[in-house]
Amino acid sequence: MAAIEQSVQTIRRGCDELIVEEELVKKLASGRKLRVKLGLDPTAPDLHLGHTVVINKLRDFQSLGHQVQFLIGDFTGMIGDPTGKNQTRPPLSREEILANAKTYREQAFRILDPEKTQILFNSEWSDKLGAEGMIKLAASYTVARLLERDDFSKRMKNNQPIAVHELLYPLMQGYDSVAMKADVELGGTDQRFNLLVGRELQKHYGQEPQCVLTMPLLEGTDGKEKMSKSLGNYIGITEPPKEMYGKLMRISDTLMWRYIDLLSFAPAATISLWKKEVASGRNPREIKVTFAREIVARFHSAAAAKRAEEEFDATFRDRELPQDMPEKTVSETAILKVLKQAGLAPSTSEAARLIEQGGVRINGEKVSDKNLALRRGETVVIQVGKRKFARVRLG
Amino acid sequence: MAAIEQSVQTIRRGCDELIVEEELVKKLASGRKLRVKLGLDPTAPDLHLGHTVVINKLRDFQSLGHQVQFLIGDFTGMIGDPTGKNQTRPPLSREEILANAKTYREQAFRILDPEKTQILFNSEWSDKLGAEGMIKLAASYTVARLLERDDFSKRMKNNQPIAVHELLYPLMQGYDSVAMKADVELGGTDQRFNLLVGRELQKHYGQEPQCVLTMPLLEGTDGKEKMSKSLGNYIGITEPPKEMYGKLMRISDTLMWRYIDLLSFAPAATISLWKKEVASGRNPREIKVTFAREIVARFHSAAAAKRAEEEFDATFRDRELPQDMPEKTVSETAILKVLKQAGLAPSTSEAARLIEQGGVRINGEKVSDKNLALRRGETVVIQVGKRKFARVRLG
Repeated sequence: MAAIEQSVQTIRRGCDELIVEEELVKKLASGRKLRVKLGLDPTAPDLHLGHTVVINKLRDFQSLGHQVQFLIGDFTGMIGDPTGKNQTRPPLSREEILANAKTYREQAFRILDPEKTQILFNSEWSDKLGAEGMIKLAASYTVARLLERDDFSKRMKNNQPIAVHELLYPLMQGYDSVAMKADVELGGTDQRFNLLVGRELQKHYGQEPQCVLTMPLLEGTDGKEKMSKSLGNYIGITEPPKEMYGKLMRISDTLMWRYIDLLSFAPAATISLWKKEVASGRNPREIKVTFAREIVARFHSAAAAKRAEEEFDATFRDRELPQDMPEKTVSETAILKVLKQAGLAPSTSEAARLIEQGGVRINGEKVSDKNLALRRGETVVIQVGKRKFARVRLG
Repeated sequence: MAAIEQSVQTIRRGCDELIVEEELVKKLASGRKLRVKLGLDPTAPDLHLGHTVVINKLRDFQSLGHQVQFLIGDFTGMIGDPTGKNQTRPPLSREEILANAKTYREQAFRILDPEKTQILFNSEWSDKLGAEGMIKLAASYTVARLLERDDFSKRMKNNQPIAVHELLYPLMQGYDSVAMKADVELGGTDQRFNLLVGRELQKHYGQEPQCVLTMPLLEGTDGKEKMSKSLGNYIGITEPPKEMYGKLMRISDTLMWRYIDLLSFAPAATISLWKKEVASGRNPREIKVTFAREIVARFHSAAAAKRAEEEFDATFRDRELPQDMPEKTVSETAILKVLKQAGLAPSTSEAARLIEQGGVRINGEKVSDKNLALRRGETVVIQVGKRKFARVRLG
């Protein structure tokens, strides 16, 4: 039983919720290879670090000997937006979906073991349901229970329309778990309701219900919104090493810990130690470098990570960054005021003139926008002209 | 246009609601043979007079040259109750449904012209919808609009469960109208919501919407509940002439007018005249006889109606009903109290003794139940022993 306790601990690490731990223990104790499901949207094939929070957890299951099943939701993807109102969600062809699935696989295999990963398409069983199967599936759930889902209940309350087919989608997702006989299903915390529908439907169809494991949603590089391609606050896992490294080095010192907690494979004890050291005065930049190296190495290679680090550092070295530059903390975020407050320009109008002349750089990059707003929590190196430097912390 | 006005008047007669009259006028003015739809439940093949209210209206359309389309809802009938909770609604086999449809046709053809009647089965297009078509259909309507249906909104309010497939049924019924390109759909007032869904879906699928014609629901012989086989208050159209005639003669004088309004083919002017005459003292029994004759002749023959009348009258004649018997109005309905109040027994205990001895008859039939309750509004002939008679009205 000690081994099982260890497994449960590995599985729980970083997760938001595990439903139900006793059931998972029972499944693990059976000695079976568990089927661990992750549903994927077939419309957006580019994975970013946000997606990898869940994929990393799948990797944990694989390291414990279990089988990962990627489910591509091609059935609804091929239908597109049946209301015809959403122009950005046209139906995808079989070929597009297969191409997207291939991309997914290639990307996910940077983390996962291909030997222990299956790719499934739900059109295989959803098509077969037919009109009759759909009615029987719909009969297994009440309207009221589905309307309890957060977004549905909000829309009902605000008199915003919910089309009837939207109620069918969670049922179809749940039916996927039935067809796959899933033992565990993973998802972001925003998927909790749908994952539980799968559990209920499995019971309804006489199966042992799947365990549900929800993972926190990773914030984007802005530290505010959930990481997403459409918000532009993402780090894609196929981005070149240098860009990936640079984006990671530029996240705030606070956000860094969140990223480390959710993305690093470093032992929990090591992470605790880092936190203690930084609290006692160690420069957080050193931890950030270690972490950025780990992530770039994961998606490219250790060598690529080393090169990215050197290039990143060189940008500063080439600009002859002084070893000891003044450190300033400012309360403003608008660049003109920041320059003035940090003592790098005598006035905001002079600051504007300096930018116009191309004489201001932040972390080595020339500033061209006089209205630029910096992000609170960030620490940046600002250079004015050839000689004036300051490490500025935005308080 | 005078002909069209006349047609509209014929169609409107006896109806509860016509949606939308201007549209019907336009359809009639086109000179096309209109497709007039009636949806039928494939589970209960025996028609009673309640069903014929709508079928008579179809006959009006046929007499105006239009085409009647009976739609047998075999698709959902073959699914049965998908929740498995309702033991009384098992799935029907294709053979059972075909047999039921045949029975329907035979019965309906006692009223309708077979030449102008088509029988359609919705499995033809519902099966073809598939899971995908079902989702697209479900996308055409919002949850909120379906929950406006009377029974749904009541159940939501009372926290009674509504299974998701129940929302799909009105959509599938509506889709029948799309597949059939129906011009007009008929139904009882309780079908209003579903018929309007058909209208909306036709618009959604780019068709000219059907007109909706709702007919009032006929009360059963008890004058209270809607006529239905399960309540036992029905007159089946295949009942033998004598029973049909007897049941019609025993309805109350008030209910008689409702039946005449909804079932008689007598001209409106004639019915008005009858009402005036009865108001001025004519015995309503005479009108009832005329009406009962009409109905029995419709489902059997004029000769059968005549025989039924003679047999019915003979029952009373043979029992030597006195020409002038006392007329009494009583406020009680329990047979023992009625006998006492009508002066046919000196006390309720004596009344009980008379019933035990088999000495009490109501409309010629021996009474054996001392707890019998008579129906308010009815007028019956009660006989006690050989000689005592009274025509008793239950006030």
